Amino acid sequence: MKNYISHDPWNIVEEGFHREHNEITESLMSLGNGRMGGRGNFEEKFSGKTLQGNYVAGVYYPDKTRVGWWKNGYPEYFAKVLNATNWIGIDIDIEYESLDLNTCEVRDFRRVLNMQEGYLERSFVAVFKSGKELKVVSKRFCSIVDDEAGAIRYAITPLNFDAKITITPYLDGAIRNKDANYDETFWDEVRKETGYGEAYIELRTRKTGFHVATGMCVEIEQDGVRIDYQSQPIKYEKYVANRITLDCRQEQETAIYKYGVNLSSLNRATDRYDSDELLQEARLYMQRVSRKGYEKMLFEQKQAWADKWKMNDITIDGDDRTVAAQQGIRFNIFQLNQTYTGEDERLNIGPKGFTGEKYGGSTYWDTEAYCLPFYLATADQKVARNLLVYRYKQLGKAIENAQKLGFKAGAALYPMVTMNGEECHNEWEITFEEIHRNGAIAYAIYDYVRYTGDEAYLVEYGLEVLIAISRFWSQRVNWSEAKQQYVMLGVTGPNEYENNVNNNWYTNYIAAWTLRYTMEVVEKVKALSPDRYAELCDRIHFQEEKEIGKASHIVGHMHYPYDETRQVFLQQSDFLDKELLSVSDIPKGQRPLNQHWSWDRILRSCFIKQADVLQGIYFFEDEFDHSTIARNFDFYEPMTVHESSLSPCVHSVLASLLGKKEKAYEMYLRTARLDLDDYNNDTEDGLHITSMAGTWLAVVKGFGGMRVEQTDAGQYGLRLSPYCPDGWQKLAFKIRFRGALLQVTTTQQTVTVENFSAQPVTLFVYGAPVTVAGNGTQTVGVKTNTAEA
Amino acid sequence: MKNYISHDPWNIVEEGFHREHNEITESLMSLGNGRMGGRGNFEEKFSGKTLQGNYVAGVYYPDKTRVGWWKNGYPEYFAKVLNATNWIGIDIDIEYESLDLNTCEVRDFRRVLNMQEGYLERSFVAVFKSGKELKVVSKRFCSIVDDEAGAIRYAITPLNFDAKITITPYLDGAIRNKDANYDETFWDEVRKETGYGEAYIELRTRKTGFHVATGMCVEIEQDGVRIDYQSQPIKYEKYVANRITLDCRQEQETAIYKYGVNLSSLNRATDRYDSDELLQEARLYMQRVSRKGYEKMLFEQKQAWADKWKMNDITIDGDDRTVAAQQGIRFNIFQLNQTYTGEDERLNIGPKGFTGEKYGGSTYWDTEAYCLPFYLATADQKVARNLLVYRYKQLGKAIENAQKLGFKAGAALYPMVTMNGEECHNEWEITFEEIHRNGAIAYAIYDYVRYTGDEAYLVEYGLEVLIAISRFWSQRVNWSEAKQQYVMLGVTGPNEYENNVNNNWYTNYIAAWTLRYTMEVVEKVKALSPDRYAELCDRIHFQEEKEIGKASHIVGHMHYPYDETRQVFLQQSDFLDKELLSVSDIPKGQRPLNQHWSWDRILRSCFIKQADVLQGIYFFEDEFDHSTIARNFDFYEPMTVHESSLSPCVHSVLASLLGKKEKAYEMYLRTARLDLDDYNNDTEDGLHITSMAGTWLAVVKGFGGMRVEQTDAGQYGLRLSPYCPDGWQKLAFKIRFRGALLQVTTTQQTVTVENFSAQPVTLFVYGAPVTVAGNGTQTVGVKTNTAEA
Repeated sequence: MKNYISHDPWNIVEEGFHREHNEITESLMSLGNGRMGGRGNFEEKFSGKTLQGNYVAGVYYPDKTRVGWWKNGYPEYFAKVLNATNWIGIDIDIEYESLDLNTCEVRDFRRVLNMQEGYLERSFVAVFKSGKELKVVSKRFCSIVDDEAGAIRYAITPLNFDAKITITPYLDGAIRNKDANYDETFWDEVRKETGYGEAYIELRTRKTGFHVATGMCVEIEQDGVRIDYQSQPIKYEKYVANRITLDCRQEQETAIYKYGVNLSSLNRATDRYDSDELLQEARLYMQRVSRKGYEKMLFEQKQAWADKWKMNDITIDGDDRTVAAQQGIRFNIFQLNQTYTGEDERLNIGPKGFTGEKYGGSTYWDTEAYCLPFYLATADQKVARNLLVYRYKQLGKAIENAQKLGFKAGAALYPMVTMNGEECHNEWEITFEEIHRNGAIAYAIYDYVRYTGDEAYLVEYGLEVLIAISRFWSQRVNWSEAKQQYVMLGVTGPNEYENNVNNNWYTNYIAAWTLRYTMEVVEKVKALSPDRYAELCDRIHFQEEKEIGKASHIVGHMHYPYDETRQVFLQQSDFLDKELLSVSDIPKGQRPLNQHWSWDRILRSCFIKQADVLQGIYFFEDEFDHSTIARNFDFYEPMTVHESSLSPCVHSVLASLLGKKEKAYEMYLRTARLDLDDYNNDTEDGLHITSMAGTWLAVVKGFGGMRVEQTDAGQYGLRLSPYCPDGWQKLAFKIRFRGALLQVTTTQQTVTVENFSAQPVTLFVYGAPVTVAGNGTQTVGVKTNTAEA
Repeated sequence: MKNYISHDPWNIVEEGFHREHNEITESLMSLGNGRMGGRGNFEEKFSGKTLQGNYVAGVYYPDKTRVGWWKNGYPEYFAKVLNATNWIGIDIDIEYESLDLNTCEVRDFRRVLNMQEGYLERSFVAVFKSGKELKVVSKRFCSIVDDEAGAIRYAITPLNFDAKITITPYLDGAIRNKDANYDETFWDEVRKETGYGEAYIELRTRKTGFHVATGMCVEIEQDGVRIDYQSQPIKYEKYVANRITLDCRQEQETAIYKYGVNLSSLNRATDRYDSDELLQEARLYMQRVSRKGYEKMLFEQKQAWADKWKMNDITIDGDDRTVAAQQGIRFNIFQLNQTYTGEDERLNIGPKGFTGEKYGGSTYWDTEAYCLPFYLATADQKVARNLLVYRYKQLGKAIENAQKLGFKAGAALYPMVTMNGEECHNEWEITFEEIHRNGAIAYAIYDYVRYTGDEAYLVEYGLEVLIAISRFWSQRVNWSEAKQQYVMLGVTGPNEYENNVNNNWYTNYIAAWTLRYTMEVVEKVKALSPDRYAELCDRIHFQEEKEIGKASHIVGHMHYPYDETRQVFLQQSDFLDKELLSVSDIPKGQRPLNQHWSWDRILRSCFIKQADVLQGIYFFEDEFDHSTIARNFDFYEPMTVHESSLSPCVHSVLASLLGKKEKAYEMYLRTARLDLDDYNNDTEDGLHITSMAGTWLAVVKGFGGMRVEQTDAGQYGLRLSPYCPDGWQKLAFKIRFRGALLQVTTTQQTVTVENFSAQPVTLFVYGAPVTVAGNGTQTVGVKTNTAEA
């Protein structure tokens, strides 16, 4: 755990240069706009510890799989997020000395990610070996408004000398993925060109054939006045630059404005790559943004971020200590918004977003299990819908994937990790066995329809996906003669510290639930649109009677491991053969377990990486009574080491539900500041983007007690049971629900719901209906959850 | 399955060149002498399908581990058998045409491995594009007598032309391992030299620093007379050659004698590698063998092989069909003798011997479980003893290995795959979990002492190993509160088509057995040598009372999964939840399963790769009654797919025991001709050396019913219950037992035991004592095993 980032409600601040933590800071200060992004690298050369990273959404490379021992069924390729052309680079040289913070002395260094307005700012004085002192102030952003562009203002001021300064803005596509399996280069150069103050380069990915045209345009001001300059074009393999030499006087500010554009063939209709059509589009795009100009772009950026924050800010008031909590939640919301905007149904939420390369792929079950609720409640309905459509469009590949594993008749197994629908992962215990992911995809459909009421989605897309997933579950279970029940052998549950177990309770439960829900949706779709239903049955050869018959039998005879003595669900068969210990029994210095224990020791221990039975209870809370939830929480929580970033949030939500406020708060802090404090010693690889949604869940579903549930009248209604954690004076969050935008403000005494929409909204606060008039406010007293007793 | 190798009792014969199977033939025709060896490659250039392979025993390279996803505890390196300098090469060029059987037309091709005399012979006529016809006859062997040398006679005869022929004998060290993880080169050149008719090259392995000096010496005869010749030295990186151009007349035979020596630093006291000391030793060694000369060397080779066959030949008489069975068993015995001679306790039996690179390492549990009985019964006692001492010497590393996995207080876990005692394997489910191997090492001590009566071994080495292994088992089990028994969670049994299971019956059984046997040996060593016992207790901190107390408690409370209904042992917990099918239920075209099913499907199926419960019953046969053995055989055999080469032999032995003669014979044929007929489509990678011992087991323990067991008087005696498989007229095998050499000859009617030693021997035939006088013979009638009924 590290603590060098200053606590501040709106900014991520590095005071003084922490050279040893530079890769962590680069991750934290990443910028993105859903379409392109990159790490918080320096514009100028840096010979110290750095992970250069620039990424273009949806552009990937199928890297040849690397395994020790091949298993039949492994995918040949792992789709990797590609490190793309560096468009931010500006080298500075002064009479044979290069500006490089690894070799210069650094004074007054400050690097700030401004989350409120969406930019990265940096200022410092570099002292060269010759004694020359150069002041630098830079500001950079990826535009949300012009989402294929970014801009930089890079200002240098000689403090104690006059000199000719050479400024070399460049585009560098000669980059490699740090995580390439075989050190291959993923990009080929197609063409490049330089012009006055401009340069363009077009690269093509090997194998996948994506083209990306990157351009730069450079303007220079001295003393606040734009100047003409001479530039010398420089071209190397996959590299273009303009070298500019200027006379700079002591105390005179020279400001370099560098505009960058990144156009990907993914977003362009053209396939005429023999011509320079894509480059031409980049030129036009560049013309547009450079004419708009840096200041206007920045102004629009601030406005766009203000709009976003209006929709999904969370504020925490309290003493000084709450600043860390405030900063944490805003950081999470900010990064989620930078990663995914929901405007393109072909994109998804990569585990590292635009902040690193690790884990490749773009889509895990994290999207459905953790991220969807965030986007449902904070963005337009179409954003969440696009996440669902993404999976619908990959249904064919999911069916192929299941076929490879021996399933048939339209059964679908969604991949563990994917970019284009094909499986990318290659550990048998995960790729082939962590099949609960399939259930999360079904659950997301339920979650979306419950939240939005968009039943048309079921007709159009949902049922087809549900049937395919249900077919998988029906084939995956087998009848145990010994138990006279259905069992599911050889699976890995959400807790990846168990592999190849039998009857993982969570997996069995979500499998049977999927079958139940599919049967329900079949009835619904039949009622809503008999024609569409008939068409679907015909197209996918759905034999209602036979398939529903089998499904019902499975639902009625599924085996759920259970401990009669403790009255808790068992994570899997034979769980009680383990030595049941508590995390507090683990000797000091042996955590995280996965860095200290061999894998077999972890597997046979009782220790849990992330919520498993509790994940199921979290999903299906309505189906369990309070004391069941409490017993299971009390049994499993002490064994859980939370070595997955996705674990604490679920525990926090359930702890809130159970009135275990201290535990809820402890778990909240762990998720909110996971990256800021580098809890797991891995922030340098990039941020834990998907788990950031979990932080939001801990606040809104946890402290806020927000649920959508069926009322007695059969309607779905919003429920709130908020409380303010001890030490906080006020917690306020915004949520969108079926057209309304609400703000919920909770103090230690009262809950106030503000309705920003014109229509009145009726919701349930602590179970009692509360109607808030259009543009009105309602306040009720806080009810303390007494479940703790 | 392939069928191009001619059936012949003493020879492996390829009639006509089977270009498409060349890599298979190269494996089959490998030569070795325990110290060096190589594949049956051609001497001359060959541009077709070939796997060049020359190997020097004990010389390895720690290749950097390659995995997809790293697990804590994985070894950094995988010790690979090294492809070493090619010493056999002789290029032939005639006026700009090269002799290359891939480009020439080939006539009258014949390649024969003569197993009786231990050499490889080849003859053919090559027709060049120019129409020139060249006859070639080559003969090559690795000398058993001079085991760092080999020799070749390579004779060429122009059939229809006179010409200058260029002959280039060479040494080529510029070779790579085909299975290198990162395409690295493993050798560096140290020095090289050429002289008249001679050349030497010394290479050093990277990282491990082994030096190997390889030399060649060339003599030439024309018309049977040794001639002088001019040679041009050629040197490239890691390559030396002598180019010799000779006038050759039509019908004149030119015979090239090439001697090769391979001296490894492993066998030399010197460590002065800055001088050419090793090369100098190679020169002296070469002088000695070349003076001895090819004919004398070959004569000695034939004699040495005759001596070996005298000790361990097995003969089968019958109709034509028995020739295949005869050839199969001889091939297995021949290759085992080529691989391991037992003279060097630092060596072991590599899975591919000198016939290929695959699987790296040199030592698996195969050595103890399958190979030891072969060497016990066919070689001097010291050979088997050296196999045991090999493990004793690696005890320290085994203790370190266990420590890495969290065990303490002198617990030892022997590696799954090793060269120098360090673990080389890197699949968690095997490396960390296939721990039954530890039991096999304990069992081998028991097996050795039972066979030889060498109780001094227990005092000197055995007990120390047993205590360390027992400590491992005592720590590896845990007490299950639910079962009120000890359980062993998360293991992989011998059947690798199950991973990470709980309570693998075989593993639990061998663990408890090890504890029992250790307790017994403690008492024995205390009685035999109280001083040594006291010294040992002190040195390894053995706390007798405490450790034996724990061990007894485990022995008394171990959990053994059992099916009360069928009265069979269960391979593991929850085995009965599986769908219990028979191999005959597997749809056609889906075998071998591991090439058609994804791993998870294999795991959750009931299908068994290799004997698991039956392996345990085979080891501990005395502890089960006949009907228990029969019930378990009948339950498991139909589910077994035998996709490990180590499976059929165990089934064959048990089938013989149970009187299931047809099954025994089917399983025998499957193991005996596994490589000759390329059953598993992988002979091209090299031969299945360790499973060859299983073939011998199927004959001697299976058909011969040979056992060593404790008599009522407490002595160990040899027991025989032989039968002759249907269709065989006579089966004869030789065994050594406690100083005596016996031949057992079985016909359909009688069993004759011939005693080649001077002392009388009493053994038990069909349970009745039979005494055979020194140099005498006894015959009894065959008793048909009636257990089938």
